[in-house]
Amino acid sequence: MKKIVVDAYGGDNAPIEIIEGALLARDKHKDLEIILCGKEEEMKQIIGSRMERITLVDAQEVITNDDMPTIAIRNKKNSSLVKAYDLLKENEDIIGLVSAGSTGAVLAGAIMKIGRIKGISRPALAPILPTKKESDVIIIDSGANIDCKPINLLHFALMGSAYYSIVYNCPSPRVALLNNGVEEEKGNELAKEAHALLKSAPINFIGNKEGRDFMSGDVDVMVADGFAGNALLKGTEGAVIAVMSLLKKSIKSHFLSMIGALFMKKTFKDIKNRVDILNKHGGSPLLGCKKLVVKNHGSCKRNNILSSIEQTLLLDENNLVGKIEDALEKLKA
Amino acid sequence: MKKIVVDAYGGDNAPIEIIEGALLARDKHKDLEIILCGKEEEMKQIIGSRMERITLVDAQEVITNDDMPTIAIRNKKNSSLVKAYDLLKENEDIIGLVSAGSTGAVLAGAIMKIGRIKGISRPALAPILPTKKESDVIIIDSGANIDCKPINLLHFALMGSAYYSIVYNCPSPRVALLNNGVEEEKGNELAKEAHALLKSAPINFIGNKEGRDFMSGDVDVMVADGFAGNALLKGTEGAVIAVMSLLKKSIKSHFLSMIGALFMKKTFKDIKNRVDILNKHGGSPLLGCKKLVVKNHGSCKRNNILSSIEQTLLLDENNLVGKIEDALEKLKA
Repeated sequence: MKKIVVDAYGGDNAPIEIIEGALLARDKHKDLEIILCGKEEEMKQIIGSRMERITLVDAQEVITNDDMPTIAIRNKKNSSLVKAYDLLKENEDIIGLVSAGSTGAVLAGAIMKIGRIKGISRPALAPILPTKKESDVIIIDSGANIDCKPINLLHFALMGSAYYSIVYNCPSPRVALLNNGVEEEKGNELAKEAHALLKSAPINFIGNKEGRDFMSGDVDVMVADGFAGNALLKGTEGAVIAVMSLLKKSIKSHFLSMIGALFMKKTFKDIKNRVDILNKHGGSPLLGCKKLVVKNHGSCKRNNILSSIEQTLLLDENNLVGKIEDALEKLKA
Repeated sequence: MKKIVVDAYGGDNAPIEIIEGALLARDKHKDLEIILCGKEEEMKQIIGSRMERITLVDAQEVITNDDMPTIAIRNKKNSSLVKAYDLLKENEDIIGLVSAGSTGAVLAGAIMKIGRIKGISRPALAPILPTKKESDVIIIDSGANIDCKPINLLHFALMGSAYYSIVYNCPSPRVALLNNGVEEEKGNELAKEAHALLKSAPINFIGNKEGRDFMSGDVDVMVADGFAGNALLKGTEGAVIAVMSLLKKSIKSHFLSMIGALFMKKTFKDIKNRVDILNKHGGSPLLGCKKLVVKNHGSCKRNNILSSIEQTLLLDENNLVGKIEDALEKLKA
């Protein structure tokens, strides 16, 4: 029996969508037990008689986006997130934690309660995005670490490569460094120093790539400091939204286009499915922690929670933490 | 008579597209004289008898992307770009320079030959992009300045605001700081310090915005260091390309969608026109120089050169350089 602990009160759609997502995962995976942390009475009412392989742990407090992360983890001892972290820490048989709560608090909790893999100073988030080809791409770090050192980017590369190789069953993901040009001498001080480190790392480093290459399908793992990575990730999201919005607006303003759009339902569905890849994968694990922590988007729904739980199972089966440790060992050698 | 000097041998499609673009501008603007720098005999052959209000200045060398910018400006004295800069420098009646050559060389030439506006240490490039609403947005800096200080970002904001107000006849453009969150305390060290400076600057500063807001239509001038700005700009471009490519691929794979697409020609044209806004505006001026320098994309065609020349005329008529100087004066006061 595998056990996963879920923060039932993190996220905009908590607790109902989180709990229903957990129940979906429980139904789909017969060897899975879920521990839900949150307001016990409320959770009981939502779940009713559907309690098979579900354990409830009472936690009356909730950490919100307004809380200062480290202070909240220290002081809100009775919050759903802190209780979940305490359970993850104290029970070896719990393989991971899923939360859609405040990113800062999830990160702070992971560092303060679970700890980092030895040698990693900064855990990172690595969301998945679609490319224009068949493959997907991850960006690491996407915003958890704003002021970075070259060594952090080296670790991001190792962790991202290990993660991508598991999720896509890809032995040697193409790792690139986000830069303002492809030439080796390009970049700010950080990128130049990181480039030198990545060149001799035990990964498939394909050199510098520009933001333009992010969705080209030529990169599997894009490495960046959290500030530029966040600009790239969110700029990309914003651009996709903008193009779809311009498309909609234009269709509405031409009668013939409106007729055409009726024939194109399958295509619009294709696009929606493809660009929605991040949600399908259930958020991003916090790479670099001693145990698995998967952070989902605040606005996620039950299917995304299902995906997060399934991602936790996949990463556990394939020993993500061990693979990152191995990569660090290889680096030392 | 207004005079503009054009580097006829900069860019992938030089000299033909550059020269034809200059001739289009000459034909359209009866009070305009163009000075073309490049290989005189070749230029003569292209122009033939169409020499009205065209002056040719012989320059046998060409600066390429492989040249080290500052070394090229110093040593390739007989290159089309250096000759053009020398003319701009020596002739008060030449109002500006247009080039589609190496960005680094155009930037180095501007600093070494023309000089910066007093008080500005880093000239910047500010390309225009579409938003999902009616308005356009500029990003400054987009890659000319990779390692920045807070004061540079303050200057980018002043210059970007002055530029946007002229191009869009908009008295008080909304200036935002690119950041990894909208809260005031967010950001790396650079962004935090820049935020404090922008708050008290004589501009319409609307606070921090994320990459996601770039194309939302809620920002007119996005301020960033050149590294993150480049990631945002190129990530956006890449995402637009990716969505259009996914759309095309999906249409081809569904018979009904192919039929639908036949009805949607106007919509596809709308989208193409809207996302092509950067080219329509003819590249970006190098903001912060003592005289007007407009840099076009290396792959630009004749119509883009026409736009660059027209942009130079517009910025001259509206005294961009003077407006930036005024903004610096206000800042001091």
